[in-house]
Amino acid sequence: MRNIKLIIEYDGTNYSGWQRQSNSLTVQEVIERALYKLTGKECILIASGRTDAGVHALAQVANFTIGSSSIPSAKFSYALNSLLPHDIVIKRSEEVSPNFHSRYSAKAKKYKYLIYNSEHPSALLRNRAYHISQPLNLDNMIKASEYFHGTHDFAGFMSSGSSVKSTVRTIKSISIAPKSDGLELEVSADGFLYNMVRIIAGTLISVGMGKIFPHSVKDIIRSCDRKQAGKTAPPQGLYLVEVYY
Amino acid sequence: MRNIKLIIEYDGTNYSGWQRQSNSLTVQEVIERALYKLTGKECILIASGRTDAGVHALAQVANFTIGSSSIPSAKFSYALNSLLPHDIVIKRSEEVSPNFHSRYSAKAKKYKYLIYNSEHPSALLRNRAYHISQPLNLDNMIKASEYFHGTHDFAGFMSSGSSVKSTVRTIKSISIAPKSDGLELEVSADGFLYNMVRIIAGTLISVGMGKIFPHSVKDIIRSCDRKQAGKTAPPQGLYLVEVYY
Repeated sequence: MRNIKLIIEYDGTNYSGWQRQSNSLTVQEVIERALYKLTGKECILIASGRTDAGVHALAQVANFTIGSSSIPSAKFSYALNSLLPHDIVIKRSEEVSPNFHSRYSAKAKKYKYLIYNSEHPSALLRNRAYHISQPLNLDNMIKASEYFHGTHDFAGFMSSGSSVKSTVRTIKSISIAPKSDGLELEVSADGFLYNMVRIIAGTLISVGMGKIFPHSVKDIIRSCDRKQAGKTAPPQGLYLVEVYY
Repeated sequence: MRNIKLIIEYDGTNYSGWQRQSNSLTVQEVIERALYKLTGKECILIASGRTDAGVHALAQVANFTIGSSSIPSAKFSYALNSLLPHDIVIKRSEEVSPNFHSRYSAKAKKYKYLIYNSEHPSALLRNRAYHISQPLNLDNMIKASEYFHGTHDFAGFMSSGSSVKSTVRTIKSISIAPKSDGLELEVSADGFLYNMVRIIAGTLISVGMGKIFPHSVKDIIRSCDRKQAGKTAPPQGLYLVEVYY
């Protein structure tokens, strides 16, 4: 049995997220179907984690095992790309050790969240960024972002609907910087709770709008109370950038 | 009569270009329909120039005249955006002098052309850049680009299908620079012939691939022969960036 690792870029706009669902189209299903067409075998993809409907990935990681197949590991990317729609691209395929598991082997992940900050929305970024028309105070957002750094109980920055043993996570780096007509938030952590980046983004946007003081973010994190944090920012601004092993 | 100038951003993917056509949907038609819905009047939009199917605009300029209307000039943007699909956005509306003509008053224009240069295509840039999988020699492309600078007869860099009095144009600036996983070509000129930027892009790509020597570009321009220049690069990499008045 070969264990094949795929690096996958996708535009999440037209999919109901990564994970297979019975009644709507997901990225996992589309790639598994292409794998079936290619190999004649029902391969199950294990991803580094789910992404929600509308969320994008620059480098999602998923692996599958396969017995006899004449396709060289590095060629799966080309073969699959010829079968996939253009909004899903396999950037790389390679054989990895039998122990490699896209989810359990992951040591850390990086996400970015894109905010388009201008009076009117953007036609080209309509499904790629969150449009905020009112001016945002970047200095205050940077100050607030620093409280997220390090190891905290992020229970207040998790949407309901997932079961986890612990809500403690370590944010290794967080930055927010100007990017053409907006802002780009980048967060790396050893793991993320459900909707964690989108709630951090929503909270920082509230800070930028002057609805939350930068120093209040410290208390909001400590409160472990979802109601204290900002809104969950919409999916289209979120990108899974990298998974570290 | 008020003369209203609009600054328009659009994602050209789903349109047959700017200019009205009898049998397919264009950006002009969609905005004129919204204007009719808004004002009850058949306003004709005059743009700075056409863009082809699939070509994008960050700031196309178009104007129209209107007699009685209670809508303040600056509010047309908001009112139209509420009626337009999300891939067309009016970024600004303002009253201009009765003499202003989006096309004839234009002094210069700037376009950019985006090349995605990586082994596999990009899911997110699939309609936003031209994918080239083989490595490109940037230094040679920069050298070649310098020959375009200044006033030349660009007859060799024009597709058939347009009638112009003169094929002489002045390129005021041209630059080509790395941009994440690719290259961005930017060209400003007092005017552009039909497909001129896309043929310049195609020629520079041929230089980058080693099919044309950088110094040969001088002779190709002089030849005024379309067959000497490179291919017309595809529309999805092209963006109308700005029109100068």
